This record gives sequence, C-alpha cells and structure tokens, in this order.
Amino acid sequence: MTDKPIVVIGGGPAGISAAQTACDLGAEVVLIEQRGFLGGTPIAENYASLTPHMRSAEEVVGAMVERLTASTSLEVLLDAEVTGLSGEAGAFALDVAAGGAVRTVDCASIVVASGFRHFDPGRETQMYGYYEYPDVIALQDLEAMLKAGDVRRPSNGETPKRLCFIQCVGSRDRHIGNEYCSKVCCGVASKEAIEVREAIPDCEVFIFYIDMRMYGYWESQIYWPAQERHHVQYVKGIVSEVLAKGDKLLVRGEDTTMGRPMETLMDMVVLSVGMEPSAGTRKLAGILGVEQNKYGFIQAANPPLDTVSTSKPGIFAAGAALGPADLEDCASSGAAAAARALSAARMVIGA
Amino acid sequence: MTDKPIVVIGGGPAGISAAQTACDLGAEVVLIEQRGFLGGTPIAENYASLTPHMRSAEEVVGAMVERLTASTSLEVLLDAEVTGLSGEAGAFALDVAAGGAVRTVDCASIVVASGFRHFDPGRETQMYGYYEYPDVIALQDLEAMLKAGDVRRPSNGETPKRLCFIQCVGSRDRHIGNEYCSKVCCGVASKEAIEVREAIPDCEVFIFYIDMRMYGYWESQIYWPAQERHHVQYVKGIVSEVLAKGDKLLVRGEDTTMGRPMETLMDMVVLSVGMEPSAGTRKLAGILGVEQNKYGFIQAANPPLDTVSTSKPGIFAAGAALGPADLEDCASSGAAAAARALSAARMVIGA
Repeated sequence: MTDKPIVVIGGGPAGISAAQTACDLGAEVVLIEQRGFLGGTPIAENYASLTPHMRSAEEVVGAMVERLTASTSLEVLLDAEVTGLSGEAGAFALDVAAGGAVRTVDCASIVVASGFRHFDPGRETQMYGYYEYPDVIALQDLEAMLKAGDVRRPSNGETPKRLCFIQCVGSRDRHIGNEYCSKVCCGVASKEAIEVREAIPDCEVFIFYIDMRMYGYWESQIYWPAQERHHVQYVKGIVSEVLAKGDKLLVRGEDTTMGRPMETLMDMVVLSVGMEPSAGTRKLAGILGVEQNKYGFIQAANPPLDTVSTSKPGIFAAGAALGPADLEDCASSGAAAAARALSAARMVIGA
Repeated sequence: MTDKPIVVIGGGPAGISAAQTACDLGAEVVLIEQRGFLGGTPIAENYASLTPHMRSAEEVVGAMVERLTASTSLEVLLDAEVTGLSGEAGAFALDVAAGGAVRTVDCASIVVASGFRHFDPGRETQMYGYYEYPDVIALQDLEAMLKAGDVRRPSNGETPKRLCFIQCVGSRDRHIGNEYCSKVCCGVASKEAIEVREAIPDCEVFIFYIDMRMYGYWESQIYWPAQERHHVQYVKGIVSEVLAKGDKLLVRGEDTTMGRPMETLMDMVVLSVGMEPSAGTRKLAGILGVEQNKYGFIQAANPPLDTVSTSKPGIFAAGAALGPADLEDCASSGAAAAARALSAARMVIGA
C-alpha cells in the first residue's frame, strides 16, 4: 500500500475518465492541465455536440467535470506544465510549473492523457486554400459556428446554399507523413452535415470521401439517417483542388464512382482535418521518456490486448495521446489506465 | 468496504481483462465461463493470429489466461451457466449451474463479458451458398485453416489459385436486420488475405468491399502493406450471388468503381461474416434484467463517455456483449468495467 497519489496529465475526456476512476477507487489524484480549464479539446475547440448522440458537448463534458471536481481526493493544477521527471515506478517526482512557481509532485504512477491536435490544413498542403479563402474552414470551425447557432459564410455573412466536406485532410496521406486514418472524421463530418441540414434546410450538403468509415453503430446511428432522413449527399471522390470563382468556391476533382472529372461550385468548404499528437503529447513523451511511434503519438507497449502500458513501468497512456481515438476509446482507455496505474502502485485493496 | 467478490461472466478477452484488473486491484473474483476453457472466441474458433500485429492468438491469449489463473484471489467456474439473479447492487446472489449442481454465488457487482457470435451466413441470405458449396467458407473457417497451416479447397483438397473475400455478410444489411457495421471484418479479412498470400504466393487474392473500414492505425498497419507488399487486390463492388461453374465458383456482381457488371471465377470464397450477440449475451440480458438494443446486444446506458454501465446499477458490460468491438475495445472496456464494478461495490481503497 502506498499513500502517494496518482498523477493524471491532461484534463480532456480521457484524463477526466482516468482521474474519476482513480478517485472512485479511493486513490489520491493530482490532475495536471496546461489550459486554464478542464474539458479538453471538446471545450477548447467549442464542439457543438458529441458524436454520435448529438448531446451538447458543453453539457456532457461539463457534467463530467462537475462530478470529478467534487471528489475530495482530487487536486487540480490548471495552467500547469510538466517540466521534468525523476524517480521510478512507485516513487516518481514530477516537476510542475504552475502559477509562476515550480513544485515537485511525488506520485506512485502516471497516466498521460495529453491528447491530439487538429491537423493544420495549411501545413504542406495548400491545395484546399484554408488560409487563402475565408469560406474554406475546418471541422472544428464549423463546430464553433454550430455551437453559436450561426452558420454563415465568413466572407460575406450570407447563409450558405451549398456546402461540402472534404474527407481525409491530413490523414491517409503518405505525402505529409500521416499514413494512418484519423478514425473519427467520417463520423464527425456526418454529424455536422446533419446539423447543417437541420439548421439550414435549404442548404445542400455534400461529403466527398474515399471510404466512409462509419464503424460499429455509427453506421446505423449517423450514416443511414444522414442519407435517408437528412439527405446529405455522399460522393465517393477525390478533391484535388479548391479555387475561387467569383464569390464561390470551385471544387475540382474526380467522382470515382462515376469515373469522371468533377467540378462543382460551393459556398462553403469544410476540411475534415485529421488527428495529430498535440504539442503536449510530443513534449511529454520526451520529458517522461516514453517511446513514441513514427507519428509522434505515444507507443502502446503491448497491443492489442494491453492498450495502456507505455515503454516505461509506472507510466500509462490513454485516449488520443496514443493515436486516433473516439470518445468511447477515451472513456474506456482512461478508466483502464487508471486501474493499471493503481495496481502498478500496489495500492491494492486490503494490502 | 465489502468482502463480497466481483463476478465476471465470460472468459474471452474482455472478461479476462476485467477479471485481471479486478484481481490486480485486490478484489476477490469469480469468473464464470460456459465453455470448458478460458480464452473465448479466439480460442474456440481457432483464430490463427490477432489483428493487427499477427501474433499467434493461442500464444497471446494463452499468456493472458496463464497470468490470470495464477491469481490467488480468483475462482474460475468452467462449463458453468448463470440461471438466475436476485438481490441488488452490493448484494447480488447469482444462481450458477456447474458440474451438475446449482450453487449460489454472492457478489457485490457483475461484469457481463459474454461476447458475440459470428453471423450465420446461411440464415436468411442463401445467395452466397455457404451451406451449398464446400469451397464457400467464412472468416473463422479460414482462420482455422491458417492456424493448421493448411489452406486447401474443401471440395477437392487442392491449393487455391484464386480466392476472394466478400465483405459485409450479415452487416450493413437492413434486410436481415443488422444495420450496424461489424467494425472488425475489414481488418480481419485483410489480415487473412495477407496470410494467404504469404502461405500460397501464387494464389491471387481479392477483397470485394463497400467501404474499407481500416480505421486508425489499421490503415498503415494492414491496408497499405496488404496492397503494396502482398498485392491483395481490393475491388469496390457488390457481390449479388455465388454459383457453381464446373469445379469453380462463379462470383457475380457489380464493380462499382468501373460501373460495370462483374463475373469472375474463384477457387474459394470467404464470407466476411459480421458480429451478432452470442446466445449467452441474449440469454444473460434477460436473466440479469439489463436492457438490450434492437439487435440484442446489451445497451450501454450512458454513451459515449460512460462505456460500461448498463440499465441496472451494479451490473456493467464490456467487449462485444455491447456491440461490434475489436480486441483493443475488449481490453479497454473490460478493465474499465472492472474498475467500475469495484467502485460500485464501494470496495474503495482505505475505506
């Protein structure tokens, strides 16, 4: 039995799940978050609603945060950054800069839940004009508009009549080094497409895709309703470029089902950007000394049946710090990592 | 603090993960398995290797079972069936028939990890001739051949020269009532395709698919190597029927990329059958009184950020009992469910 706390780094869905699980099992927990608030990317990036059930991100994540922060065995460090690590499993000492001072947090084990960042669609691939045309936006930009209840063309404030999503921006792309699929973008784009159709019934919505990866229940929960109830138009096709034409956007590519070139005018283009390791994930991996994969995500040491161990004993990882992950992955692996962190610390019941 | 055990029902990957997690956290665990051995479907159905890392299923799962059964706080009941439940969270009494007798297992909380079964491709859809032609087999039949190191045409014992997979058999299909995607079949078929190409280099291998759902790292781990290194041929197309032609199989359908009818001869056809709730999952849901979804899987009560709660306090579910799941889902949700089962039982550390 140890009375040292468990440290969870990252206050997004995976970190909240890990911290809640550890608290519920009776551990002392220190939750370290670099931002000034808990909730992670869904809150920081103003997500409107969560895939696939379309409940308000703010409400769902807010309720999780509220429940967690009511825990008496939890200490939360906000605006805090991990700067160093010494010691070993069972007796780590973590240097944490917060509030202008550096303190040392002694802990038994560590859960890294430092998450992802959205691929920057201006990086290396300017063909879609994200930084050139105001009406070319990314998934998270549309989330923020949907959350505000105000989807308009940034260029002129008009309500769009034709809007399309381009899938796999920054994913499945050897040229930019991201060969992996980002897993959630098909579901998220389809969810947003439904929300646009609900908000603006006379706006036509198209999704240009390579494969629709609506795995599991997303197929019946999102993909079928998107087509049948909301008349979102899915086009299997590769978009090669987006150009300005008058006050519209010309989307040019190939309709691969029809086997012919495609040119179509849009009012707004939404880039379905993929997931990359957050700056925090990259930096933490170095500071903590855990192995990363070639993409910079933290490497799971023994997959597929051990999802949370890293290369370093006593340090576990969860959620999108390990790679593309949906919310269910984050919730499950967060809880799994906390359980492992506790047992690694030999905080065994009755021991 | 309670000294009542946690019960885990089902000894496959999710149940093993749950039982191990609970044992590691110091709980007493009773693991109930209807078969005469632990390991679940990967062992019962003779899987050759596990997606995506292609390590031997027997070795990987065997090591998990060995480690688990070394736990001193674990009791395993094999050939055992749950027949009744009374009591409530914190004080359940489970009737278990095992060894010709019925005993009552008192427990604090329950994890249901009773898994899935492979869709029966003879049920309602005879168009692929699974029960008619010996050379039409299913994913798990090919696994068994690969495990035995002996892939041959069942009809005549010859080595196949042309073999194809048909995806989405029993999935994404409103006609048979399974609208969901079974999530793992694209990855499993591609893994098996690679293994066939390695075992029989002059056998051409085709995969007929609607969308290749190689989410996350499967894209770079399996899909790209399958195409580039192993020359598996992916054809986007719908197969409408399989017929005998001489001693070959005539596969008839539509190549949707080429937009033309397709007829091609194969030596073997592998049906990529989807996941359905196991008989045990369906039956247990009734006995335990937990809600099921329309497909018969156990309904997660509060998704997506609580993945393991059921409609009944004190009863949690994990793995493919909840719906289509890959091995990582099973490992993570198994551990998450165990953590929740322990905290629900108020087996809190130091309490």
